[in-house]
Amino acid sequence: MSSKKLSCGRDFFAVPNLAVALENGGKCGFDFVSIPLVHPRYKRDFIFADGSHVRDTISEPLTRNDLVLPSGEWMSLVVGKISPWLNVDSYDENIRTNSEKALFEELMLSMHLNIPVVLVPLLSKNCVNLARCLLSHCGLIKSNQAFWIHVPLTDPKSTLECSDCDSEDTWDWWNKLRTFCDNERRLSLALEIGCAVPSSIVLKRWLGEPVRALVISTDLFIMNRKGFPVLKRCHQELLCHFFKLEVQFILTGASRTENGLQSYYQYLDHLYMTRSVPDKMGAFAKGYNDYLQNPLQPLMDNLDSHTYEVFEKDPVKYEKYEKAISCFLKDRDSSELHEIVIMVVGAGRGPLVQAALKAASKTKMHVKIYAVEKNPGAVVTLRNRQKDEWGSVVTVISCDMRDWKPLVKADLLVSELLGSFGDNELSPECLDGAQRFLKGDGVSIPFQYSSYLAPLSAPKLYSSIEECRERDKKHFLAHYETPYVVRLWNAYVISPPQICFSFNHPKKDINNNRYACLRFRNGEVAATIHGFAGYFDTMLYESVSLSILPEKETKDMISWFPIFFPLKKPIQVCSFANIEVHMWRCSSLKRVWYEWLVTEPERSDIHNAGGRSYWIGL
Amino acid sequence: MSSKKLSCGRDFFAVPNLAVALENGGKCGFDFVSIPLVHPRYKRDFIFADGSHVRDTISEPLTRNDLVLPSGEWMSLVVGKISPWLNVDSYDENIRTNSEKALFEELMLSMHLNIPVVLVPLLSKNCVNLARCLLSHCGLIKSNQAFWIHVPLTDPKSTLECSDCDSEDTWDWWNKLRTFCDNERRLSLALEIGCAVPSSIVLKRWLGEPVRALVISTDLFIMNRKGFPVLKRCHQELLCHFFKLEVQFILTGASRTENGLQSYYQYLDHLYMTRSVPDKMGAFAKGYNDYLQNPLQPLMDNLDSHTYEVFEKDPVKYEKYEKAISCFLKDRDSSELHEIVIMVVGAGRGPLVQAALKAASKTKMHVKIYAVEKNPGAVVTLRNRQKDEWGSVVTVISCDMRDWKPLVKADLLVSELLGSFGDNELSPECLDGAQRFLKGDGVSIPFQYSSYLAPLSAPKLYSSIEECRERDKKHFLAHYETPYVVRLWNAYVISPPQICFSFNHPKKDINNNRYACLRFRNGEVAATIHGFAGYFDTMLYESVSLSILPEKETKDMISWFPIFFPLKKPIQVCSFANIEVHMWRCSSLKRVWYEWLVTEPERSDIHNAGGRSYWIGL
Repeated sequence: MSSKKLSCGRDFFAVPNLAVALENGGKCGFDFVSIPLVHPRYKRDFIFADGSHVRDTISEPLTRNDLVLPSGEWMSLVVGKISPWLNVDSYDENIRTNSEKALFEELMLSMHLNIPVVLVPLLSKNCVNLARCLLSHCGLIKSNQAFWIHVPLTDPKSTLECSDCDSEDTWDWWNKLRTFCDNERRLSLALEIGCAVPSSIVLKRWLGEPVRALVISTDLFIMNRKGFPVLKRCHQELLCHFFKLEVQFILTGASRTENGLQSYYQYLDHLYMTRSVPDKMGAFAKGYNDYLQNPLQPLMDNLDSHTYEVFEKDPVKYEKYEKAISCFLKDRDSSELHEIVIMVVGAGRGPLVQAALKAASKTKMHVKIYAVEKNPGAVVTLRNRQKDEWGSVVTVISCDMRDWKPLVKADLLVSELLGSFGDNELSPECLDGAQRFLKGDGVSIPFQYSSYLAPLSAPKLYSSIEECRERDKKHFLAHYETPYVVRLWNAYVISPPQICFSFNHPKKDINNNRYACLRFRNGEVAATIHGFAGYFDTMLYESVSLSILPEKETKDMISWFPIFFPLKKPIQVCSFANIEVHMWRCSSLKRVWYEWLVTEPERSDIHNAGGRSYWIGL
Repeated sequence: MSSKKLSCGRDFFAVPNLAVALENGGKCGFDFVSIPLVHPRYKRDFIFADGSHVRDTISEPLTRNDLVLPSGEWMSLVVGKISPWLNVDSYDENIRTNSEKALFEELMLSMHLNIPVVLVPLLSKNCVNLARCLLSHCGLIKSNQAFWIHVPLTDPKSTLECSDCDSEDTWDWWNKLRTFCDNERRLSLALEIGCAVPSSIVLKRWLGEPVRALVISTDLFIMNRKGFPVLKRCHQELLCHFFKLEVQFILTGASRTENGLQSYYQYLDHLYMTRSVPDKMGAFAKGYNDYLQNPLQPLMDNLDSHTYEVFEKDPVKYEKYEKAISCFLKDRDSSELHEIVIMVVGAGRGPLVQAALKAASKTKMHVKIYAVEKNPGAVVTLRNRQKDEWGSVVTVISCDMRDWKPLVKADLLVSELLGSFGDNELSPECLDGAQRFLKGDGVSIPFQYSSYLAPLSAPKLYSSIEECRERDKKHFLAHYETPYVVRLWNAYVISPPQICFSFNHPKKDINNNRYACLRFRNGEVAATIHGFAGYFDTMLYESVSLSILPEKETKDMISWFPIFFPLKKPIQVCSFANIEVHMWRCSSLKRVWYEWLVTEPERSDIHNAGGRSYWIGL
């Protein structure tokens, strides 16, 4: 149960007295009102059909006086609605011209009143001029004013009985509008729930869009035996899916119960408060949802104490390592007489040393552990723990594993050098440097890891890339060809992940460059690709594994979020179309980087050519 | 006849002695040589099939000593060829990896030697990795090194007899490569002429590409009666088309005549020197081919004396105006007793005043001319000419036509306020301001004008937009959503122009905003749209007109080049596909601007939303 209550507004068709409306809404528990910006009676004509202008002759005020509310209330309690009669995309030039002038008048008014959210109806796929007007207006405003595009969740023409007959894909209306507007971040969605509930795939796609509000009519409610409004199960489930996006609600339509409008609000709030609670990962990661982070560079930069602390708290990862080491030790059990040499390469502050000691203790094996670490800050911790906790069984080596010259060879190398995309923190290069001191029959934990890619629709992430621009970067689109570590939340995986690159340790081939061409097939609904989600899995020992792949995620493991490889320009993909992506892992003497390219359904250009925008230092 | 001779190089498969080769080539008249960067015998393996590396064991030099030539000769006389055995897009990982290493080695060598041009063979449509390698390398070089992608003009599989059977569109190979490389300006074309001659449309499309050289084999020549090599008529015509792009030639293959290699060179040079000469416009405009210019802002900025001088030299425009004014005067002849009032609005330094005086003189009509001009610099000229040449028949008014309050009304308004896109220098707004002082039956010359648009493939223009970036512009892609005045030369009009906006004068409707949705149909070959070409035509009086439309261009008129509206991202269009573009003319109190958008075959975003990147000041 969350302690935060549902945010829900009350919609009005016309408001004779705004202050009274606000007061009544508040009494019923509503948090805000949505009202027409201009009274419906003020339908204005600027140009008559003969081309002459009439606007100047109107000296009546456009709408209510702004003095009816203190500005603080305009700024926090009011959602303004654009007049529904406007049709800026009419084929009739007079209607189009009048509508356009009226639209700009209403937008200017909303800006004058500092109304935080404007609700803009989108009634069809013909929306080039609406897009143009909105984008023009967005260029004018300095405030954080947002535009909620009011779109039906399913075509109103479709019904529960017949969801296919002649109905349009309303997602495509929205997709057109936002494409024309180049994913302008001020534009988001208010979805109107209708009788029909969309299919699972259509719903998933909507959940990848920036939905800020659901508009729900009192018509959709049925009365329970006590006369209180409730929703059908299918609508309840639908709402619950959107709770994860923390949407607000707008209740429209007249009350149909003696229990008053507050009973509708109470029911919605009840649904919200009794929604399922997030799991461990969810609770830990909530603040990171859709938050773009630059991937760590643990080889170039030394991690700080806090970062170590966060990762050491993973409740699962080190248990898995301990299990893997135990299995390894058991396999050696019968034949080995001498002590087993374990080298923990990249020991950090010692969690893997601890895991190895636990495994040795449980399996009652004699081990000698070398803890190799290049970060002098972490070595301080290691030496203290060696002295205070571990004793002579552990030797701390303050050295880069690629440079260390040990006197003995190891039976087991243990490392945790993997990033969100597996090899992206340069585990292959580090372990290549370390495998010199592994015995001929020595083993590496992990012994294998693979990266995965999946095409992703993530308009919210795409819009926020713009904020990651760094002025000093050489290439002006550098931030669009840089991968980001991010907990994917308001995003839609278009097709299941496929394996990209794999590495095994120890290995003969020291060429760590890779190339993969992956071919995905889109499902039954059209989508927009904003980039690719990257994941990894790894085999530690025998069948002991870790994974962040959605379908086989290691439960409760919090150490890794996925990685996101964006595209400079989103690509439209039709239903059942192929998606072909090429991914390279490249290297020079001092750097490793990825380059990527889409060749189907459309050709992109090569992203991050020669590592110009993003690289990992060796 | 041009005095500049043809630039032609001699191709060598292998060069035992480079200095001798250069000397022999020079003796035959050749300007440069094209040679393998690395001797063909140095086929190198870096990785064996088992994954082990062998490169380190090779201590032989890669190729000839750079000391064989002084660096000045390397930098001016040598085109370096990438080894033909390289296949960086092989499905075989070993071949791919070896080829990639060898390619980078050769590219580095070419950079070391400062070779100005590298010839890179493109042998199939599979070229993602070649594109990646070239783009990576382009990011490294500081010099002006260019890469000529060596592509057959037609698929070698096709022949004169059977040009369709199972052959590929080699343009698509190139189109893929350059798309992957985001139109990198260092990449251009060396087209290999084969037996087959492409169709007219395929040729036109090639002529829109950045072709720098033609590679022609001695095989293609036939011997005339005197034993000299000549080309078939179809090949002669083909070459002549490419002369307009000022291509260089590379002659490959062994001599097949006793007259020696020089006879091939002499024949090619003969063809070049006897090519058709450009017309007046061509001679005047040669330096402006494909040169992007910002459109004039004659309303905001005052034109300078030099600009007036250039435009006054137009040999045709003022004749047309004189003819139009004469026709007008003749129409008034019989009935008018009083003198006819002509107001020249925007008189500049007086060419239209002169034209009106000539027309009056020829038609023996009494006229009174007011020359209205807002540019004080031009008014100095007008007043001098009035005093010295014209006398009291002309009155000079130093005033903006939108502000002038005349005491009489005009029978005729004459203006020349049109830009390359017709209304783009704000003729509609200016004439709206001036039509106040036109009599009820008064006439405007011009009385009508229209703009036109055509989808355009213009990779060369697109690449040069990058150089038009202005650091202080608010939007980082501003230079991609700004129109440019440019003489279209190395460009391909994909579909004939269609009418966009029209204006009539005098007019009742003072709304000068416009919207047009144009739908084009691509022809039989695929193409890439880089933007839209804009043109205009105008009706001066009755049937007297001016036009810059390619099909009905006013001959010898030099005052206008077309305008180019770019797209931020080029769009691929299949054969016979629709192309839909939306164009708006928008205005505020102080500005006028255009916005544009493509919705088919792909959706672009809205260009220049709200006039953020380009506008014309009122």
